[in-house]
Amino acid sequence: MDDKPFQDYYQDDYSHCYGCGRLNEHGHQIKSYWDGDEGVCRIMPKSYYSGGMKDILYGGLIASLMDCHGAGTAAAAKARELGIEMKPGGMPRFVTASLKVDFRSPTPVGKELELRANIVSIDGRKVVVNVTLATDGTVHAQGELLMIQLKDE
Amino acid sequence: MDDKPFQDYYQDDYSHCYGCGRLNEHGHQIKSYWDGDEGVCRIMPKSYYSGGMKDILYGGLIASLMDCHGAGTAAAAKARELGIEMKPGGMPRFVTASLKVDFRSPTPVGKELELRANIVSIDGRKVVVNVTLATDGTVHAQGELLMIQLKDE
Repeated sequence: MDDKPFQDYYQDDYSHCYGCGRLNEHGHQIKSYWDGDEGVCRIMPKSYYSGGMKDILYGGLIASLMDCHGAGTAAAAKARELGIEMKPGGMPRFVTASLKVDFRSPTPVGKELELRANIVSIDGRKVVVNVTLATDGTVHAQGELLMIQLKDE
Repeated sequence: MDDKPFQDYYQDDYSHCYGCGRLNEHGHQIKSYWDGDEGVCRIMPKSYYSGGMKDILYGGLIASLMDCHGAGTAAAAKARELGIEMKPGGMPRFVTASLKVDFRSPTPVGKELELRANIVSIDGRKVVVNVTLATDGTVHAQGELLMIQLKDE
């Protein structure tokens, strides 16, 4: 496993995301890594990210984390495909075209979350990613994202 | 337009949501109201809810707000269908089964957001809701949610 997260390779002007930007001091600053062909992210959310009930995790946070982790994995996968050397500022940039989340079972608050992203397809600038979110090995939600690579300016 | 938001009718034990719970002091505490048959919510997000770039709104926030506003409108619509008198604690409770968001164009930071929710169908405990998110009348994202009503305990 690479010891640097995908997000450390983003250009500075693309590192302000509330979910994954290393330059956003207010945000989650999630970190995603390769584990073989899967992108993996682990995070312990603060307890106030609850849903309606105090002991259930906020669905909006689940969607948000899937979005950022999926985007990071799409970018890293595109870099792999292109044979781009991973260096700070050298990452392809992606935006989310669509995000679909299926919530299977309530996600408990107070547990570390594990997100796993798998690349479904890479077709030019379009990358489709599946993401699962689990606690203690139980998958509570599944997402599919369509990511679009930005053209270089 | 009713002068009380849907969220004020939620039971206390269901009012801890980070997005819409009136008892979550850390959260967004969004407020949704009827405007005819549409649920409407307006919110001015803090500027640090940016996407990768500083001037573009965070997609995760868009998904989160759609989720909460869609859930509130589903509950209010079910209450209307059942002829339930709107009083604090009297609202049917819903959870999100699935959420799909299509991002059409970047949403600028620093603008008031207007979310509008329309009920697509009510089939027993299942409610399908469409939600749009706009700034200055321009729709930037569209969502569809499948909400499931919780059974009373």
